[in-house]
Order: sequence, then structure tokens, then C-alpha cells
Amino acid sequence: MKQAFHWFCRKCGFREDFGRSYYWKCPKCGSPLVISTGRRYEVSKGRGLARYKSVLPVTPLKYMGEGETPLVKVSEEGVEVWFKLEYLNPSGSFKDRGTSLSLSYARKLGYTTVVDDSSGNTAISISLYSRALGLKPVLFIPRTAPEGKKKILRFLGAELHESESRGAASVDVVEYSRSHPEAYYVAHTWSYFYVIGAATIAFEVFDEAGVPDYVIAPVGSGGLLLGLAHGFKTLLEQGLTTKMPRIIGVQGYSVQPVNVALKGVETPGEESWLADGIMVPNPPRLAEIVDAIRESQGDVHLVGNTEVREAWLKLVDQGFLVEPTSAAAYAALERLKTRLQGKSVLVPLTGSGLKIIPLM
Amino acid sequence: MKQAFHWFCRKCGFREDFGRSYYWKCPKCGSPLVISTGRRYEVSKGRGLARYKSVLPVTPLKYMGEGETPLVKVSEEGVEVWFKLEYLNPSGSFKDRGTSLSLSYARKLGYTTVVDDSSGNTAISISLYSRALGLKPVLFIPRTAPEGKKKILRFLGAELHESESRGAASVDVVEYSRSHPEAYYVAHTWSYFYVIGAATIAFEVFDEAGVPDYVIAPVGSGGLLLGLAHGFKTLLEQGLTTKMPRIIGVQGYSVQPVNVALKGVETPGEESWLADGIMVPNPPRLAEIVDAIRESQGDVHLVGNTEVREAWLKLVDQGFLVEPTSAAAYAALERLKTRLQGKSVLVPLTGSGLKIIPLM
Repeated sequence: MKQAFHWFCRKCGFREDFGRSYYWKCPKCGSPLVISTGRRYEVSKGRGLARYKSVLPVTPLKYMGEGETPLVKVSEEGVEVWFKLEYLNPSGSFKDRGTSLSLSYARKLGYTTVVDDSSGNTAISISLYSRALGLKPVLFIPRTAPEGKKKILRFLGAELHESESRGAASVDVVEYSRSHPEAYYVAHTWSYFYVIGAATIAFEVFDEAGVPDYVIAPVGSGGLLLGLAHGFKTLLEQGLTTKMPRIIGVQGYSVQPVNVALKGVETPGEESWLADGIMVPNPPRLAEIVDAIRESQGDVHLVGNTEVREAWLKLVDQGFLVEPTSAAAYAALERLKTRLQGKSVLVPLTGSGLKIIPLM
Repeated sequence: MKQAFHWFCRKCGFREDFGRSYYWKCPKCGSPLVISTGRRYEVSKGRGLARYKSVLPVTPLKYMGEGETPLVKVSEEGVEVWFKLEYLNPSGSFKDRGTSLSLSYARKLGYTTVVDDSSGNTAISISLYSRALGLKPVLFIPRTAPEGKKKILRFLGAELHESESRGAASVDVVEYSRSHPEAYYVAHTWSYFYVIGAATIAFEVFDEAGVPDYVIAPVGSGGLLLGLAHGFKTLLEQGLTTKMPRIIGVQGYSVQPVNVALKGVETPGEESWLADGIMVPNPPRLAEIVDAIRESQGDVHLVGNTEVREAWLKLVDQGFLVEPTSAAAYAALERLKTRLQGKSVLVPLTGSGLKIIPLM
């Protein structure tokens, strides 16, 4: 019994069959949309994300090596840590999962250009996948973005537009997409494709090792945390497991919207710009993130530069060549170790250090 | 029936049980050694190289995500190309396979320091794995090595010694290892660990897709080509297949010792410094490389900068974010396409572009 996927708005109830149109947000009320399904989870033959095509709204048009990342289990002071090496995806971050789905949909619908506002891992991911799928990548980035990232993006053939600030970039990109009907606005902080992409991490972990007791994930726009929640919840709801992990979100003290939403008050602490990849002040899916954490009886933890740096070097010491943002979750684990004795804890390592270390 | 591994010298016949001593070259005649075995190939449970532990002289002490890289099959103008994404190994190159074996052996034998002469992918691989295995990495590099690579090596905690040239580095490193009995000289251009490491690529390809008709591999010191030959030959000799791929080695016009050895004369052509990773003027295993190519009824092809650059950009266009050296083999394939109609061709993509593109 194959039910169709559909676009759905949690806020106003907008609902439409999936597959003919694209919305980066609800056309009725402007809220983030989800893509829901009643399809049965099963593992298909093939490689990468296609193994989970039964529950994916789009099958990747091309397999480029994304997914099926290594899972490394390490026993650390009484905690069983499951590191998922997401930085070994093709462009060096877990974003490739969502990008693969999102851009395959763009191609399917006949768009010829892809546009987004990002200067980080998502921008690199989008540029790489655009080329491979025959789409033209256009990126709005803040003028202040690091030169090394601009070099990678230019090398990948992206058309770069430099906006005054991160905020200005997010306005300029919408303007651009309005006047360019051939352009598909990825809107990665809004897009449910990135949530579903991250859900495949949960599926892979489940297939290989089962359900962990805890998940500790860095939270910027929340796609990773929501994806892991979505993935494990799918397995739970379909009766493939009776266990749901507790989900711990990790933010930096400098930008902590999830913490404020969950606890009602800002928690003071050291600045945290080292974990720049999670500095998202207004994540569009904030309400969903809070719900996912609460529902799993999870929590949010905050970290600062000192802890992030220590955790980062400790990860590299173990052979994990990641970027500092990847270490935020591991820094939080460090603090929680006494509480997590005997537990299994999934820690996704999100982005490659190779993009930044040569420039340091 | 488990037969022991042993060190063996093809030239003078030196032979010794493996496991108690380490030799980077034959202690009797100074030739490169091989490590041979009579053990039966089988696929074990586990992840990474440990899956092939029955035919490995050393099992990696730690799994850090190396191996099991994606295999992407693409049909290109009548040729079935099997890309093996070796640049998605933990330090960004296939060298991690050999490093994992070599350094595990160093640890097993009680060495505390690891020393090598390299400024490229091997140096980064050795530095990363040394940290993770609790060994101190010491590297002799030419003074002229690119600053970006030095930065990565320093970040990884390597002790760097700058020699006057590549040649001087290879002299200085031997000097150093003589006066430091605690130091294990990796000698990656001599080491059979790197050959056996690369053989696991062949095993993975065989398990997933069978034996290809052709293998096209870049040849510097030859570890990759010899490893692929060793791997497929092991499968053939043990009766697991009746097919052996033809092996095509690829070098640049600027440095072409294999071509000269095979054809007796230098072939003139465009300079090829873009493929810097394969510019090895005197590969210690030259005779073995020539034998492996001849025995498989293979060949050697030469490429120049223009072809390498074109092939490189074409690879990136397909979503493979590699370094130019990785493109040498693909450049050769481009030329051979009419001859390879209907054939399956394995092309390992060796190193990540992320190490150099941010610096370009």
C-alpha cells in the first residue's frame, strides 16, 4: 500500500499532494512546511540514500557517494560513544544528504538554476551537487565570508553575490528568486528536504547498530536534530523498535534561541564563535525543535569556545579531522559523562576540517 | 589452516617470519621486501580493513573510518566506469589504508615515534593516524613544500624538519632513524604495508561488483597499482574468480620511470606538474610495477597538464571533489575510450581537493 507524500503545514493545516509543485514555505501562512508520508520503511538494494527510498519523497537522481558514512564505536570513560563520520560525505559535510534530495527535486520539476543564501557547508554542497546535476548554482553570501570559502565556491563554478550581511543575503536571495522563475530557492534553513536527508543518518545507524540511548547533536537551523528525531520516530511509529533516544541539542552561548525557547531565559556564558556553523539566531523551525527535544525527554546544552576548542583537538587526536562546529556536541558529551554512564550515545561529526585547517 | 606471514626479498631470497621485527628494506641486499602469506581470503564481520583480516599481516589497532569507500558506476560513452572514491578516507586519501596497517605494526612492536619523508597525502595520513595511535609523528619535508600542507601538518602536531630538497629529505630521514631507535621509519615508497593497504580496495570492489575488465591507476611510487594487482591476483590465485583485470599505469610526461622501464625510451610530451602526487623519479619497486603491468597484459600511458586539468574539472563536474593527481588516470581513460567500448574500468579517485582548493 503506497500512500502519496504530501506537503503539510503544522500551523495552518495547508495540505497538498507532493510532486508537482515546490514551496520553500507555506503558501498560505508563511510557516515552514513538512513533507509527510504513510509509506512503510524498508531497506532497498542500492547505495547511499536510495537504500531508504521507500520513505523518501524523492530518490536522488545520481549517486555521488553520499551516505553510508562510517560508524565508529568508542568506549570513553564508561560511555559508549557512536561517532557517525558525516564529514566524509562528498563535499565534506552531512548537508550532502539534504542537498541530494532537494536538488533532485529541483531537476525533476524543470528548474535550471538553484539559489541559496549560505557561505558555509551548505553552499559548498549545493555548488558541487548543482554542477553534477546540470543546474546553475547562484549563492548570496555576506561580504565578510572567509576568502577560503569563496575560493572553493568560485572553483565550483558558483555565481556569487556578496550582500552587506547575513541578514541582507537572506533578503536579497528572496528578491532574486522572485524575479527569476527558473531559479529554485533551496532555503536550507527552512527546507524539509534537509530534515529528511538527516533522517537517513538515523536509518543507517539503526540498520548497523540499533537505536542509541542518546543523541547529541549541534543545532543551528535544526535540520540535523530534526532529521535524527524524524528518523528514529519513523522507526518507532512503524514498530521496528520500541525505543526512542533522548535527544540533546547543543548550541553556543553566543546564539542560543533553542535554549531560550526551552527554558524561557538566556543563559550567560563564554562566547562561542568557534562553532560558527550553529550560529543561527532565528531558526524557522524553532517550535519543532523544541517539541522534538521535549517529546524525547531530551534537553539543550550550551558550550563556549574553550570547551569547543578542547573537544575539537580531542576529536582530531582520535583521528577525526573535523571542523570546530563538529566538536560542539562532543564538548557537551564531555560534561554529561557522569550522567551517561553505561549509555550508548550517537554523536554525528558534521563537517570536514580540511576546508579550514589549510587556511588557519 | 593458518600459515604465518613472512618477510620475503624477491631479489636475494631473504625470508623471515613476520611479526617480531620490522624492515623497511631487505636487511641483506637493500631491495624492497614483500610480505607474503598462504592464508585463505575470506570476508570477516566488522568494518573497514578488518573485513579482510584473514589476508592482512596486521589488523588495524583502531577503526577510524578508513576503507569501505563508495563505488560509483557511471556509463560514459560506451565505457562502464567504476569510480572508487578513495578521497573520502579519513585524512582525504587512499594512503590511510596503508598507514593504518603500517602504524598498527609500529605500535605492536613498541615504537613510540614514527618518521617519514613526505609532504603530501602520506604525511597528512601519517600525522593523523600517529596521533590517534599514540605515536609521535616526525616528518622530513622539502623546504619548498606548500605552506598550506605545512599548516595541516603542524595542526596535526607533526614535528617538521625542513630539508633542502626532496632528495635531501630522504637522506636526512634515514640519518634520523639510525640515531633514534625509538623511531619507526615508515618509508612509504618502499613499504609493503601500503601495497597491502591498497589491495583492500580490490577486495572491496570484488565484494561489491566483481572483477573489472581494466584498472587504470596513477603511478608514483606504485603502491596503489601494486596493491590493486596484488588484490585481484590473490582472488584469482585462490580460485574466487577466473578473471584478472588488465592494469594500466598512468604517469606524467615530466616523470615517467615506468614508461622508460617498459618501453626502453623516454616519450616526449607536455609537462605534468599538476599531477604532483605521482612525480616519483626512482620508485623503489619499479621492477615489480613493470612485472605487474606486463603480467596483466596491461600498459602504461602518459599525460600532460592540459589533459589532467580537463579531466580534473570533468571529475568535479560529476561531483567528485578531488585533487588534480586523482585526475591523471581519468585523463588516460579519456584517450582510451574507443578501445574500451563495452568494458568495465576501475578508476580509483585518490585524493581530496579540499586540501588544496581553498589555497588556490
